[in-house]
Parts: sequence; C-alpha cells; structure tokens
Amino acid sequence: MQQAVVTGTVWSTKRIDGIPPGALLTVRTAGGEELVAFDVLGSGVGEEVLISLGSVAAAWFTGTPPPIDALIIGSVDPR
Amino acid sequence: MQQAVVTGTVWSTKRIDGIPPGALLTVRTAGGEELVAFDVLGSGVGEEVLISLGSVAAAWFTGTPPPIDALIIGSVDPR
Amino acid sequence: MQQAVVTGTVWSTKRIDGIPPGALLTVRTAGGEELVAFDVLGSGVGEEVLISLGSVAAAWFTGTPPPIDALIIGSVDPR
Amino acid sequence: MQQAVVTGTVWSTKRIDGIPPGALLTVRTAGGEELVAFDVLGSGVGEEVLISLGSVAAAWFTGTPPPIDALIIGSVDPR
Amino acid sequence: MQQAVVTGTVWSTKRIDGIPPGALLTVRTAGGEELVAFDVLGSGVGEEVLISLGSVAAAWFTGTPPPIDALIIGSVDPR
Repeated sequence: MQQAVVTGTVWSTKRIDGIPPGALLTVRTAGGEELVAFDVLGSGVGEEVLISLGSVAAAWFTGTPPPIDALIIGSVDPR
Repeated sequence: MQQAVVTGTVWSTKRIDGIPPGALLTVRTAGGEELVAFDVLGSGVGEEVLISLGSVAAAWFTGTPPPIDALIIGSVDPR
Repeated sequence: MQQAVVTGTVWSTKRIDGIPPGALLTVRTAGGEELVAFDVLGSGVGEEVLISLGSVAAAWFTGTPPPIDALIIGSVDPR
Repeated sequence: MQQAVVTGTVWSTKRIDGIPPGALLTVRTAGGEELVAFDVLGSGVGEEVLISLGSVAAAWFTGTPPPIDALIIGSVDPR
Repeated sequence: MQQAVVTGTVWSTKRIDGIPPGALLTVRTAGGEELVAFDVLGSGVGEEVLISLGSVAAAWFTGTPPPIDALIIGSVDPR
C-alpha cells in the first residue's frame, strides 16, 4: 500500500460501463505521484489515506470486478 | 487510475490475434509518462481522460481477456 | 521481492471491510520508496525484511483475497 | 501498452520449463527503459512495436500461462 | 522481462508459510534496480539472468501460487 493525501475530486460523466457508485478522488502519494483512487469511505480533501493498487483494488468489489486499479482502503489515524 | 491527455493515434496493421476493435491512443499521463491506451469512448486528441492499467484493463472486456494493459475508462469533465 | 527496512506502524480505524488482522507497517525499500506493507510476522522497527507486491500478496491469504498489495514475506537473517 | 523499439535478441539456453517457442527481444521503451519482450510476430531490430506488460502478456497464450511478463502485441505502422 | 545480474544471496529463516524450496538471490536489473528474485536454476553471483515480475512469477509454480513476485526464468547465453 501507499500513504497518500486526498487533493480533490474528479468528475467523469462520459465513462465506460462497469464503474461502481463511489467517488473518484485525486491523491498525492508519499512519493509525490498524482493518482486517482476510488473511494467508498467518504474521504475528504486533506485526509491522509492508504491506497492499494492493481488487481487487488478491483477484486475487492463484489460481483464482476470493475476496471478500477486504485482503491482507498483506509484513513490513517491522526497521531 | 491516472489522469492523462490524449496526444494521438497509433495504427498497427501487423498485430497478434485477440486485440478487440477500438482505437489505440497515445496518452501522456499527469506524471509525464507516454503510454498507449485502448479506447472505446471515441476520445479525441487533447481530451483529458482517466486510464486504468494492468490486468483490470483486460478484465473489463467480455469473453477472453485481450492482451490490453491500459484502458481509457472515462473522460474528465471540464471544470 | 524487495528488501526493505521497517520504519514504523500505521493505524487505520476507519477502513474498508476485508482487511485481515495484522499490522500495517511502514517500510523503506532498498530503492528508497516509502510503502506500507502488511505484516503477520511481528516485525519490529529497524528490522530488515523482504516484501512481495501486487496480487501475489493478496493471494497468500486464505479465503477471499483481501485488498492488500504489499506483504512482508520474511525477515532477512543478520549477516 | 508502451511503444518501444527492438534493439536485439537474447538467447537463453538454460531456462525454466514452460517458456513457449518464440523470440526474446530486447526493446527500449519510449520512456528509455530496457526490457526483454516475447515476440511471435518476427519483429526485427529497429522495428517500432507495442508491448503489453504483466499478467495480460501471459494470459494471451493458450494453455497454462507461461512465465512471460512482456509481449509484443503489434508493430507500429510507419507514418 | 528484465535482464539482471546476480549479486548475492538472501537468507531468511523467519518467513511466512508457502515459500517453496529454492534460493532467494539479490539481482541488479539493467535499469539499476536492486531486487530479490526466486531461483530454481542454481544461478551464481555474476551470472546474467532474465527475470519475470508480478503474478506470472507466482503462477509458474505448481499447486497453490506462492507469495513470490520475481522469478529467474533463464540465464542469458554468453555472447
């Protein structure tokens, strides 16, 4: 996993089938990479999160795996 | 996922079996990487898109998964 | 696999379903990348470990594969 | 996918079981990375090709997927 | 695949279940990355090898795929 900070939301009206309901959030990883991760936790801008990448992100969903390769799996507790 | 901008089209007449109908578009990711992504949305040059990478791209297709490791899953709404 | 050094622990109370019991450890890879890896070995800060990435990490678990893309598979013996 | 140029051939007599007949070609990606890709198209040195990476490369083969993580899926048409 | 040179051996006595018999070798890829790859070919230090990464490495093994994400698939013939 990677630690990342939520930086915003992406809206995509024109999209392929099979993307489940949820938010597409822009995140910046600890390594400085800008990614878009799927979120089901209601994460907000500035929140520190953990993301999983690749097929394990898609496999988390029930039913046919969606074409999602980045998933927010948790929020990092404030220290 | 990664945000990317469509920069052109690649034509490949000599190809292996199993590549489905659709466009092969060159894209530049937000991180500056040059990739070729499969497109079924009719995306155009200059359009900002979201791409998924790896086996989740292939798994989106019905039937036998094609040897496709990058898929445009949506167009980013203009802000 | 990659060699990495354990640098700390991440706590995540708000998380998605399906993450198994175990520790989420921050590690720094030999290449200098900061990752979060799942640990079932009781690894401690400063310990040198081996991590596997991607779907093979999730596939190690029994039952439904969890959304885990980084797993500590062993501790490197001191030389 | 990534665009790449074929730069040579690799010969490997001592190898594990399960690698199918075909050529192992060295390629340089558009991003400057040196990889070895499996080729079934008879691609030649200097030819511009498209490569797919990861498990989708292995899944293209019939029967048991071979331990191949890079496949030339097409030749880029000259412009 | 990537070309790499074997640079040493890693010993890991404390490890999770499911890692098959074989050597864990440190390798340096052509791109300068330091990885640990599983070896069943008896590769030695200084030997030039080909490695496959990701789930295709695990899928090569018979039975339950082990948590191995890097496999030496062949030795590069001397030129």
